[in-house]
Amino acid sequence: MNAEIIAVGSEMLTHTRVDTNSLFLTEQLNDLGIEVTQKHVVGDDRERIAGLIGRAVSAVQFVIISGGLGPTEDDLTRDAVAMALGRRQLLNEPIVEAIEQRFRQMNRVMPEINKRQAMVIEGAQILANDRGTAPGQWIEEGGGVVMLLPGPPHELKSMFTKQCLPRLERIVPALAIRTLQLRISGMSESELDQAIAPIYKRYENPVTTILAHNADMQVHLRARCKTEGETMLLLAEVGGQIEAVLGERIYSRNGDPLEAVIGQKLVAARATLAVAESATGGGLADRISGVPGSSAYFLGGFVTYTKRMKVDVLGVPEEVIERFGPVSAETAEAMAHAARLRTGATWALSVTGNAGPTTDGDEAPVGMVYVGLSGPRETVSFHRQWNSDRARVRAFAGQMALDLLHRKLSGR
Amino acid sequence: MNAEIIAVGSEMLTHTRVDTNSLFLTEQLNDLGIEVTQKHVVGDDRERIAGLIGRAVSAVQFVIISGGLGPTEDDLTRDAVAMALGRRQLLNEPIVEAIEQRFRQMNRVMPEINKRQAMVIEGAQILANDRGTAPGQWIEEGGGVVMLLPGPPHELKSMFTKQCLPRLERIVPALAIRTLQLRISGMSESELDQAIAPIYKRYENPVTTILAHNADMQVHLRARCKTEGETMLLLAEVGGQIEAVLGERIYSRNGDPLEAVIGQKLVAARATLAVAESATGGGLADRISGVPGSSAYFLGGFVTYTKRMKVDVLGVPEEVIERFGPVSAETAEAMAHAARLRTGATWALSVTGNAGPTTDGDEAPVGMVYVGLSGPRETVSFHRQWNSDRARVRAFAGQMALDLLHRKLSGR
Repeated sequence: MNAEIIAVGSEMLTHTRVDTNSLFLTEQLNDLGIEVTQKHVVGDDRERIAGLIGRAVSAVQFVIISGGLGPTEDDLTRDAVAMALGRRQLLNEPIVEAIEQRFRQMNRVMPEINKRQAMVIEGAQILANDRGTAPGQWIEEGGGVVMLLPGPPHELKSMFTKQCLPRLERIVPALAIRTLQLRISGMSESELDQAIAPIYKRYENPVTTILAHNADMQVHLRARCKTEGETMLLLAEVGGQIEAVLGERIYSRNGDPLEAVIGQKLVAARATLAVAESATGGGLADRISGVPGSSAYFLGGFVTYTKRMKVDVLGVPEEVIERFGPVSAETAEAMAHAARLRTGATWALSVTGNAGPTTDGDEAPVGMVYVGLSGPRETVSFHRQWNSDRARVRAFAGQMALDLLHRKLSGR
Repeated sequence: MNAEIIAVGSEMLTHTRVDTNSLFLTEQLNDLGIEVTQKHVVGDDRERIAGLIGRAVSAVQFVIISGGLGPTEDDLTRDAVAMALGRRQLLNEPIVEAIEQRFRQMNRVMPEINKRQAMVIEGAQILANDRGTAPGQWIEEGGGVVMLLPGPPHELKSMFTKQCLPRLERIVPALAIRTLQLRISGMSESELDQAIAPIYKRYENPVTTILAHNADMQVHLRARCKTEGETMLLLAEVGGQIEAVLGERIYSRNGDPLEAVIGQKLVAARATLAVAESATGGGLADRISGVPGSSAYFLGGFVTYTKRMKVDVLGVPEEVIERFGPVSAETAEAMAHAARLRTGATWALSVTGNAGPTTDGDEAPVGMVYVGLSGPRETVSFHRQWNSDRARVRAFAGQMALDLLHRKLSGR
């Protein structure tokens, strides 16, 4: 079973707008076992829209059209569908009344133009819109279905989920879908792909996707079979091989990001955390404090962008910086140690480095970063150098710091 | 003059991938005065690709196809174009040699399969690829042009800019394009649109786009006329009206973000900046230190996520927090004042609030944020309450703090 998705709207043909509805629709359709064979974006032009619909209807079983259902003269999807299918449009009085009532609730009178939204293709089922004024339509045609959905993503998602999915599930043989989501730290995207491609490339089902955001990696496996038992077995077979290869580099199996997993471990250990940052400039604290409930374990920290801040405010001994330089293992360790001392936290992370774009005088080379961790038993540090831009070096450095703490909290 | 863009590749039909090449191509084509009337995404299927190409060639003057030029059997764009145009493919020996040499430079032998990349449509001009092995093709057909470009964005951009643009400029009457980019602070997207829509809606040229990222707004105007003089006049006419309406809320006309504009003002005034954050948890320092060269004026700051951090580390008087609460004008002002005192900075910003998702006991309501600013002459504070999620409240609060400092540095 195949589908084509058509997004209607001239604004989707500008250089700043992407059609994202089709990503949601693709995921939903794939979960039903329906493949998307083509996607189209077309402007507000009746003949062009009708041309696309006519060809799609003759090529695939399901045609999903988003957008162009508003009240203005630019909203041509209804007219184009009527033209392509050779059907009439009829004014639907209950829809007129529903729209009028919506306007009354806002203390306004329905403009005459909104009656356009009550025009229904002959033989269509009406799809209620609980997020806006434009109703959708479900039109069965020659063994297939044409769906008209509104363009705004929150309206489309609600309507597809509540109105289209139940109808599709009656048509399409049911499949059991299960997903496995692994999050991985301490590997680059190419290292990760090299490690697991020999496994996942052997299977079309489950579908395996690698998502990389800066240094944070995710592997998604989505399996679909006729029964839940088959799906679980298949997912266990492929997921098990991938988990065996990645081992301890997997830090989460439920979608939680690294900073949330660390938070859970800190809460469980009744421990607290502080940070002292220079190269990441607040980005590490930002990630840690972005977790809802982080105030239970995150005390706060220091952004020490100058030597004076490191010495006077944080309490790093001046002679350490003088002797080893601000970007050094010794300074990273002294920063972590001082942050722990000044705040009373169980653990303190530090980051010092040169994120670029320039290096002056005796400073460290661009991309060189030291990360320190001070805990109840010892203070350690590690360094790496990245050949990348300022924003990415900062993001990589934050990930490296969290990875270090996570490994320590996991007893490694 | 119209164009259609076709992206080829089954991976573009998954729920995680968007075709972004078409955004680049749309911008480039629009700048030449060519409108994009349709965009398509199609999988690795010869008949479907050929069907799209055949219809596009008969509908528009320019057809641009990206992807499917690799060496494997899945790469079917060349075959599909040959089928759609009814032309033969010929093996091009110089391309074979060039690919062989590329492999030799990597100390490898060219696999036989790579010869597929040397197949050229009869009558095509070859477009050199300086970023990869797949050459592009420029095929003139019935008064129009079909362009075959590689899928990887950096290859496509380089090839389009170096090979296609000069050829297109010979065909298409030249237009002078000028853009105006305004960045605005202190307004919501709907306030901004309401203020300027009555102006920009009266003009199809320039094209006006509003971009919103959290609380940071941008207005882009792109004008194109036959001569530079006409373009400049038109841009001045429309841009002038918009600038008059927005006035001092415009903080940048060259694309610089708010934190960079603030940095320039601090450098010019030989002033320095420190921060003390609780609700934004490092996000404010992160934005400020994200500007290259910010170490010239940014000293650093405090992330004070607990009362003890505010009192013992930052130096806020305990009685202020006791009496007015951690989320209050008094605490915000005491935090800014203490940060300035502790660091010796000319200016210090503070943020305290409740970003949610929950409020406990005597704490402030979710979404309530106070921002403080301490300077050489006075310490002030402002507050706002947002009805939004944690991440957005944090982002809005950071923007509000920067907006406050920017207004002060601008003498307002």
